[in-house]
Amino acid sequence: MSEHVDIDLARERALAEADLPAAAAKLAGMSITEVVETLWRTSYQRGAVLFRLLSKERALETFERFEPAHQADLLRALQDEEVTGLFAGLDPDDRVGLLDEVPAVVAKRLLLGLTPHERSLTTLMLGYPARSVGRRMSPEYVRAHPEFTAGHVLETVRNRASEAETIYMIPVTDGEKRLIGVVSLREILAAPEDTRVADLMQTPEYATVSDDAEYVARRCGDANLLAMPVVDSEKRLVGILTIDDAHQILRDAEDEDIARAGGSEPLRRPYLSTSAFKIARARVVWLLVLAVSALLTVQVLGIFEATLEQKVVLALFIPLLTGTGGNTGSQAATTITRALAMGEVTSKDVGRVLLREFRVGTTLGLLLGVLGFVLASLVYDVPTGLVIGSTLLCVCAMAATVGGAMPLIAKAIRVDPAVFSTPFITTFCDATGLLIYFSLAKVILGI
Amino acid sequence: MSEHVDIDLARERALAEADLPAAAAKLAGMSITEVVETLWRTSYQRGAVLFRLLSKERALETFERFEPAHQADLLRALQDEEVTGLFAGLDPDDRVGLLDEVPAVVAKRLLLGLTPHERSLTTLMLGYPARSVGRRMSPEYVRAHPEFTAGHVLETVRNRASEAETIYMIPVTDGEKRLIGVVSLREILAAPEDTRVADLMQTPEYATVSDDAEYVARRCGDANLLAMPVVDSEKRLVGILTIDDAHQILRDAEDEDIARAGGSEPLRRPYLSTSAFKIARARVVWLLVLAVSALLTVQVLGIFEATLEQKVVLALFIPLLTGTGGNTGSQAATTITRALAMGEVTSKDVGRVLLREFRVGTTLGLLLGVLGFVLASLVYDVPTGLVIGSTLLCVCAMAATVGGAMPLIAKAIRVDPAVFSTPFITTFCDATGLLIYFSLAKVILGI
Repeated sequence: MSEHVDIDLARERALAEADLPAAAAKLAGMSITEVVETLWRTSYQRGAVLFRLLSKERALETFERFEPAHQADLLRALQDEEVTGLFAGLDPDDRVGLLDEVPAVVAKRLLLGLTPHERSLTTLMLGYPARSVGRRMSPEYVRAHPEFTAGHVLETVRNRASEAETIYMIPVTDGEKRLIGVVSLREILAAPEDTRVADLMQTPEYATVSDDAEYVARRCGDANLLAMPVVDSEKRLVGILTIDDAHQILRDAEDEDIARAGGSEPLRRPYLSTSAFKIARARVVWLLVLAVSALLTVQVLGIFEATLEQKVVLALFIPLLTGTGGNTGSQAATTITRALAMGEVTSKDVGRVLLREFRVGTTLGLLLGVLGFVLASLVYDVPTGLVIGSTLLCVCAMAATVGGAMPLIAKAIRVDPAVFSTPFITTFCDATGLLIYFSLAKVILGI
Repeated sequence: MSEHVDIDLARERALAEADLPAAAAKLAGMSITEVVETLWRTSYQRGAVLFRLLSKERALETFERFEPAHQADLLRALQDEEVTGLFAGLDPDDRVGLLDEVPAVVAKRLLLGLTPHERSLTTLMLGYPARSVGRRMSPEYVRAHPEFTAGHVLETVRNRASEAETIYMIPVTDGEKRLIGVVSLREILAAPEDTRVADLMQTPEYATVSDDAEYVARRCGDANLLAMPVVDSEKRLVGILTIDDAHQILRDAEDEDIARAGGSEPLRRPYLSTSAFKIARARVVWLLVLAVSALLTVQVLGIFEATLEQKVVLALFIPLLTGTGGNTGSQAATTITRALAMGEVTSKDVGRVLLREFRVGTTLGLLLGVLGFVLASLVYDVPTGLVIGSTLLCVCAMAATVGGAMPLIAKAIRVDPAVFSTPFITTFCDATGLLIYFSLAKVILGI
């Protein structure tokens, strides 16, 4: 980033020293993106001080770019009337996201500050299930009737260009507001003015209001749509999901997936404006779960303490073997988790996936096993080499198969595959790997 | 996915049994998304057979939705004239992506099949550096002059609506094609017909043609833009990056990041249409690197073999301790890698990051250390408890700091943080953790 965003040092110093008039001048000279990035790099308390230096319009534009949890942090440091103004200025979907982050009493007060129309739009969206597209869509859109002409639609679009969330994709509905097609503004413009919408519209790709937001966002992006109509259970149009909201949903989902793949919860705030305590809190649960499940390895090793006493050299390979098992398992789990998220694999593919992962694991295990056998035979002796080589083969085949199965099981029991896979695979592969290792050692070395 | 895409069993069976007329009928009844998902689930050889059953237009739409590596697989199974037709039908940016995936001789033949105009557009884009936005942008756009009126621009847009990549964001250029502003179609429509573009246009957010594609795509998405103008070093407009291309770039980058966080290379093809051999190949390099670096742990343990012989019980905690270190390190590395990618942290923040990670690591280490001390004291004895507790504290503090530093170092030496961090952290934390463990054990237990 350093080469791209040229935030000069003088500007940073002015902001840091709380020389407010100088800071205000610096902020006024920045683009919204630069303001956002500057506020990302301070604590939210200091962020609030800088935030007040922005003009009302720029403040709202900046605020809209923050994640809901970060917005909620900032609100705590602002005055009531500032908060009410910001909240009223947000789009309905952003309002819903923010309301989920603030205490109930604050949420109630914020809702009371809205106009009755805005309040009813917002509470309607709050009624849809958490994580559903109903909470992320926009209820403000332009729609057309199939008997309208292109010229008439263009006129409507012109009049409503400033308020609707998007005017580039226009849902077509019948007299009962049921979705029957979509037409793009591009087609409206390209067609002669008296063409009927019915002759231009296409079969719509649409989502149902209770669908998972991430799933809908991915479909919207993958199908290259600028917006996707959202309907209720009777196919009546209730809103649209625009590509920029889809982008935000996918970015949040990615945040979560990446954090969980790394064994922590997402911060949902910029790193530098999150306190060390909050960062530790996002990591501690996972670390404890992993540490507690690692106690299982202590148990398993306890069983083989006598074997270890007879041949201490076996201990040297423990981290290598458990590590390789864990790596193979997490490779498989990551691949399948991603393939599930992208819709490339579904729960009913369990047989194909397991067979494939077993073959992949065996291939990798054969390669590593032969290498391990040769190396350990050279450095120690052939029986030790045999133990290491055969353990690597078995561990890789087992870990890949189990790693591939976990996300599918998680999906079947409706748990986030990323949450379920990581701790289970590490523990399971470590413990099973040690069992395999010492069992093979006992047989081959005759201890 | 199973609840969303209702691919009925009869349809799958018809496809599987290669009953071609039945399969053609089934395919004809599917939406493009369903066709894409069906082809994702077969080998590319069988995919090519099904592909031929599609109408020419639907075949192209389907083909456009595949990833370049998957497209290249499919091309190998198709006839020359089919290939030429598909290739000519692609957008210039998709063509460039595909050319990178096929052998040079095929690329040359494909280029010769284009019209001179299309060929020159394509070779121009091929000249930009790999991974730059120049290779992913669209060279076909509508632009306006500041002295044009809104009515005139609307007329131009109407005439070019069918060919330009987007008509919703219009770059404004001066007489020398230098970018001086942007105007949205929304603003053109909302304004009176005789308004000058100069009075409507806004300061543009733009990218330079050699900028990293992922960086530009993220900016485009984060700033909620439908398209971003791309200029050369003299600020002359050369293309635009549209939001749907940005979405695809980010999805590919996410694929890569997630795969590498899980210790493998991305497949760049749907899982079920990739052979087990190719899957193993995507994983083997990482697995070998990790296994070879794990040999370091064997070395470190070798140093302490005498200590281990005196007190075998120390071996029982090895997986627990190395595991906890590895987890803490990878939590920190994941967080910082993500923060770097999102622009929340830059290379010059190294001091703030390290201090913060050290504090987080110490907090986590204190908690785990106390727990470890209590548990190990109860089950074994107080000196063993002291060794385990103090090791956990030191390992967590060290692992979080090192884990936080790695991505910043990677960034500074211009290596992908994800590639650099994973193997280095695992190895380093395991080896250092064992050194700390046995050193503390020798001191505390007086061995």
